[in-house]
Amino acid sequence: MEALGLLARPGELGLATDLYELTMAAAYFEHGMVDEVAVFEMFVRHLPEDRGYLLVAGLEQAVEYLTRLSFDASSLAYLRRLPIFAAVSDDFFAYLERFRFTGDVNAFPEGTLAFANEPLVQVRAPIIEAQLVETFLLATINHQTLIATKAARVVEAARGTGVIEFGARRAHSFQAACYGARAAVIGGCIGTSNVLAGQRFGLKVYGTAAHSFTMGFPHEMDAFRAFHDTFPQHTILLIDTYDTLEGARRATQVAPDIAGVRLDSGDLLELSRQVRRILDEAGLRQAKIVASGDLNEDKIAALLDAGAPIDLWGVGTDLLTSRDAPALGGVYKLVAVEREGQRVPVRKLSQGKVTYPDAKQVYRARDAAGRFAGDALAIVGEVLPGEPLLVPVLRRGQRADPLPDLPAICARAREQLAALPEPFRRRRGPETYPVSLSPRLQAEAEAMVAGLE
Amino acid sequence: MEALGLLARPGELGLATDLYELTMAAAYFEHGMVDEVAVFEMFVRHLPEDRGYLLVAGLEQAVEYLTRLSFDASSLAYLRRLPIFAAVSDDFFAYLERFRFTGDVNAFPEGTLAFANEPLVQVRAPIIEAQLVETFLLATINHQTLIATKAARVVEAARGTGVIEFGARRAHSFQAACYGARAAVIGGCIGTSNVLAGQRFGLKVYGTAAHSFTMGFPHEMDAFRAFHDTFPQHTILLIDTYDTLEGARRATQVAPDIAGVRLDSGDLLELSRQVRRILDEAGLRQAKIVASGDLNEDKIAALLDAGAPIDLWGVGTDLLTSRDAPALGGVYKLVAVEREGQRVPVRKLSQGKVTYPDAKQVYRARDAAGRFAGDALAIVGEVLPGEPLLVPVLRRGQRADPLPDLPAICARAREQLAALPEPFRRRRGPETYPVSLSPRLQAEAEAMVAGLE
Repeated sequence: MEALGLLARPGELGLATDLYELTMAAAYFEHGMVDEVAVFEMFVRHLPEDRGYLLVAGLEQAVEYLTRLSFDASSLAYLRRLPIFAAVSDDFFAYLERFRFTGDVNAFPEGTLAFANEPLVQVRAPIIEAQLVETFLLATINHQTLIATKAARVVEAARGTGVIEFGARRAHSFQAACYGARAAVIGGCIGTSNVLAGQRFGLKVYGTAAHSFTMGFPHEMDAFRAFHDTFPQHTILLIDTYDTLEGARRATQVAPDIAGVRLDSGDLLELSRQVRRILDEAGLRQAKIVASGDLNEDKIAALLDAGAPIDLWGVGTDLLTSRDAPALGGVYKLVAVEREGQRVPVRKLSQGKVTYPDAKQVYRARDAAGRFAGDALAIVGEVLPGEPLLVPVLRRGQRADPLPDLPAICARAREQLAALPEPFRRRRGPETYPVSLSPRLQAEAEAMVAGLE
Repeated sequence: MEALGLLARPGELGLATDLYELTMAAAYFEHGMVDEVAVFEMFVRHLPEDRGYLLVAGLEQAVEYLTRLSFDASSLAYLRRLPIFAAVSDDFFAYLERFRFTGDVNAFPEGTLAFANEPLVQVRAPIIEAQLVETFLLATINHQTLIATKAARVVEAARGTGVIEFGARRAHSFQAACYGARAAVIGGCIGTSNVLAGQRFGLKVYGTAAHSFTMGFPHEMDAFRAFHDTFPQHTILLIDTYDTLEGARRATQVAPDIAGVRLDSGDLLELSRQVRRILDEAGLRQAKIVASGDLNEDKIAALLDAGAPIDLWGVGTDLLTSRDAPALGGVYKLVAVEREGQRVPVRKLSQGKVTYPDAKQVYRARDAAGRFAGDALAIVGEVLPGEPLLVPVLRRGQRADPLPDLPAICARAREQLAALPEPFRRRRGPETYPVSLSPRLQAEAEAMVAGLE
């Protein structure tokens, strides 16, 4: 599996990073900084357009990476051959050969809501280790958080009707499809069309048939009957291959117990109404109408606003690529170094890219009704009212408390979304959720700017 | 590697599909259609906005999938437990246990330009096999073609200055980063920051240092000197951590032989001019200026139009997510079935989703100057002027001619892009490249519509 089996062996995870993480590692090593301890935090400077929150996902895969990361012989041989490492000592490669991640990690549990500037992941480790893991952590958590957030928007628009993730064919590689399906279910989808994701992550899988199936038989009715023969309790018939209303009438003649029909083209409002009437008049009141075909949260909301009698939605491309906001700009920044056992905050001042200093905790307060009432960023060790959101994940490279399983993550996501007041959940133009700095953090940030200027 | 090792074993590739491919397979099997032969074609109905062409990529991984695809015992056990398969015979699972892809595949070689409605991949196989592979083929070729096309746009905007792919941290999973890096190089990038992609696909890798590296030392100059010590021939210094111009002056004091400096924030036009002056006045005329930070083809073109003296570009998020057009809508449609040894064209008429019937070939004509002058879709067996673009890839499930290696793919991409007249390569509002139907195909399509109506 030369090309498909990427990341199949722990020993190749060492190379799963940007080259500059390894050049920095070599320079630190060669300058005797191998034991210097640093604290890095991952956060998002600005939420994507029309996003009032993020729904965090991907930590399970990030932790798996951290606990398995190493360099096998072929990875080391590759690095030694790179011209840029020509002047680097053998000792550095011997160090990489023994390399394991030995640091501490705190993180927002998956299924937690997050806002701009909140540290989602905090890594305290020898600086080479803490730096090396940047790229993979960002890729994993940026991706799944992006998709979980998009899914939450789509699911909210569907107002209690079910949303199924249908996007594998448009995801950015099949692996992106699998992790995307996981994230979509964290975001509230009831399941996925992706069988491998279903097996690997225990997701419910859904599937009907394609137009080609209907076309593979001499007549539409032959295809419908064949499908019902094979899946008597699970027959959802795709009725728009030739003429949707004629397809609906034929569907009623297949059996009185079909589970539903699927519409994949045309005017879904008008067709769903007419199809509903045809089904009801034939006594198939239990048969559901599934809609698919380039759907997204706006189209679903508009269809439901207009009263479309649609029970289930298959959402693909827009969901699995987060099409209206296809990248999450999570960054991973040094916030402190330890010198002589003391944590020393640091702060970058590059234009437009300011970072708050020091290792932080985030506290989330609730109002009397249990709804979220504002977050506060504090310096680690400060205690403020509310729930502390960064919890221990790794200690000295070993798993701390077990991570929650997927049903628990999904339950947390539901509770978090329900506790977020509506203005912050709006599909377009959401309000900005209040995130404040503790007085100590504010003072520390200001002192650093003054000191550096 | 429970979650990270996705697609590590050929035996799990069978599940790397949408459930409906497997339900259709079961229904075909149970109805004695296991030997029916069908022809499917992958194509794109409409090019994404502001795209005048597609640059095809991903075939190597698609072929690897087709030649290794099978169902292992745990995959079969999983499928048997799914409620939807409760009424399906044991014979079907025995069939899956023996399953191999045995069909014929023709495809556009990677690095070929493609336009709307052109079949990029054509699969002729027993209908179950041809159908089952849909999801993975689409995911793989949609993704890499999307990124290769985006990269070609960015590289064209860079007008001969080098573009390096920097986007792993924002890709949709680290695997997407690796395949995306491969596609970016097919699109003309000179290399990538992604080390695993570099190793796996033989790409040139590039890396400097992050702001955290500068901040990890007491003073900026300490960081610069440490980096130069370790990489004497390969020193590119990131100079914008505190004050870019001061950083540039310090860089000139590190050594006269530094390879360059990198700017990652601020007004890149103004800063690059001032930094160039500082470097030149210090006699560092050979030192290059690398720019990065949320770049894309529009920003690069604007900077070069204004005369920014930037030599190399690191392009990340926009490139690896194809941010302005983050999904390619490739579809895979049944175009013919074989009945009693005769190919019978089929055509779907769903509203807005019309498909041209029958197995096709695409011919690309050139003008006297060697530039592309229009494509024609023809029925397989017709011979028209120009280069036939669909070439044999698999015969009876086995590789036909060897696929070209990556340097050959890149060379083909360069030649194809150079042969495409400028109006079709425009960054905004490109003209539509002419794609015609052969008279026979036109007549066949019209006859089918008449017959169906």
